[in-house]
Amino acid sequence: MALHKRLTVAFQGELGAFSQQAARQLLGEDIEVVPCQRFDEMFQAVSGGKVDAAAVPIENTLHGSVHENYDHLLHFELPIVGETNVRIGHNLIAMPGVAFKDIKYVYSHPVALNQCLKFLAAHPEMQRTTFYDTAGSVKMLAEEKRTDAAAIASSVAAEIYGAHILRKSIEDDRENFTRFFLLRRPGKLKGRMAEAEAARTAAAKGWKTSVVFTTRNTPGALFRAMSAFALRDLSLTKIESRPLRGKPWEYLFYLDFLGKADDEKSQRAIAHLGEVADFLRVLGSYPKGA
Amino acid sequence: MALHKRLTVAFQGELGAFSQQAARQLLGEDIEVVPCQRFDEMFQAVSGGKVDAAAVPIENTLHGSVHENYDHLLHFELPIVGETNVRIGHNLIAMPGVAFKDIKYVYSHPVALNQCLKFLAAHPEMQRTTFYDTAGSVKMLAEEKRTDAAAIASSVAAEIYGAHILRKSIEDDRENFTRFFLLRRPGKLKGRMAEAEAARTAAAKGWKTSVVFTTRNTPGALFRAMSAFALRDLSLTKIESRPLRGKPWEYLFYLDFLGKADDEKSQRAIAHLGEVADFLRVLGSYPKGA
Repeated sequence: MALHKRLTVAFQGELGAFSQQAARQLLGEDIEVVPCQRFDEMFQAVSGGKVDAAAVPIENTLHGSVHENYDHLLHFELPIVGETNVRIGHNLIAMPGVAFKDIKYVYSHPVALNQCLKFLAAHPEMQRTTFYDTAGSVKMLAEEKRTDAAAIASSVAAEIYGAHILRKSIEDDRENFTRFFLLRRPGKLKGRMAEAEAARTAAAKGWKTSVVFTTRNTPGALFRAMSAFALRDLSLTKIESRPLRGKPWEYLFYLDFLGKADDEKSQRAIAHLGEVADFLRVLGSYPKGA
Repeated sequence: MALHKRLTVAFQGELGAFSQQAARQLLGEDIEVVPCQRFDEMFQAVSGGKVDAAAVPIENTLHGSVHENYDHLLHFELPIVGETNVRIGHNLIAMPGVAFKDIKYVYSHPVALNQCLKFLAAHPEMQRTTFYDTAGSVKMLAEEKRTDAAAIASSVAAEIYGAHILRKSIEDDRENFTRFFLLRRPGKLKGRMAEAEAARTAAAKGWKTSVVFTTRNTPGALFRAMSAFALRDLSLTKIESRPLRGKPWEYLFYLDFLGKADDEKSQRAIAHLGEVADFLRVLGSYPKGA
């Protein structure tokens, strides 16, 4: 019977958050989602065995990287086993019966408000108010039965909280995507998680690997580190630097490349990187997201 | 007489912010500081000729880069003409007559609160409350004559608002520094700004140059870009990637290296980078900060 238990997946935000959609894209519709208030709570939930996996936002095409989650990747040591991209479409959402002309306040997460500046500039009568979460702002409208306010959130959030969409796609830039990682506990998998991973592996159209490393503080150190990939024609898709704690003006580098950690070329590149790096960890190999 | 007018320098935050100290380190005590609420207002103030210069935080050794300001550097095209590092020391500050045992609330900017976690964990009786600015939270205590609350801010903020320090250096990590850029309008300088720049140039112990570029979206493109520096033994001190608007999963790279844009080696490196980059701009050369 245990094998038929649904997978549990942590995500940050309220039900209806874009992260919930990421969890579905990664593991299918038949999952149990576990909302968390903060990013570190998701990592803790996986680490402590409270949930099977977490869907973690890592970068957005307008806003940039979610740096806090890069730091948590290093600290919690949970392997990355999947990636997916979610298109972020923002909608103006209000409770049933509330009309566009009634809206005096618009609630949402500051990043979402910042991504709808053209709409908000065209409607100065609506006062923008920051809230801790996009979907959470719809939930609040529903709980407080607000008739003077709208929220900016996903269409799924409108559905979940019984609200309706007053304006669709009010985001400034349609090229708005968030990339998510799927994280799980290290070690051998059983049951549903093993099945899901086998299915993702079978469907993979190319792989990506993420590593994190530090270089010796010498001229050309980062260049030599990158040569491990360039000299083997392995494409880098992302490089991110984060401050190294306790060593002012030195950095950790997070690097993604096209390849699977256990194929021969990638293995050699990682071994080569290990020769020139002070510290190196492979964070995971995973099927490339669509 | 115009020549004797004091230099005006914009910074983000209230009087007593760490940015004010950066402005003094960069241009001396005899300046007129102009507080701005938001980062973009500082850039606007310089751009529009309202002030002579701005002191702009660009990275912190614990928190990482101030990404918004990287984006503004690209947009506003103001040359970087100086850099300085400010040690961030956090203090617990209250109004005169208020004792440690009276404190029920602690106000500060979320980043500052996050940098004093050990102190706050040891004092669960103090409820942490986020505020838009460190020095601004001291100003608020003074204005509201609060007897139940403290703020976390610089010692200069305590001085300015007539408050006193209850606990010194409550930050978790002493290796807490913020790096600032000095920005001015492009073009030839006159008067005090020209004098100040000549003084900084004369005192320079080594130079840094900042550039921003994009690469063609081909394998090894970033590696080739970096070879322009590595093959000439020019040391990189920082690399930062930011999303490229309208091109999902492509990036702008901000790179700092040791060298002056008009010395021969740097000139050749920049020309070489121009050959392999799709877009390239030199953001400025400036004396290396202490």
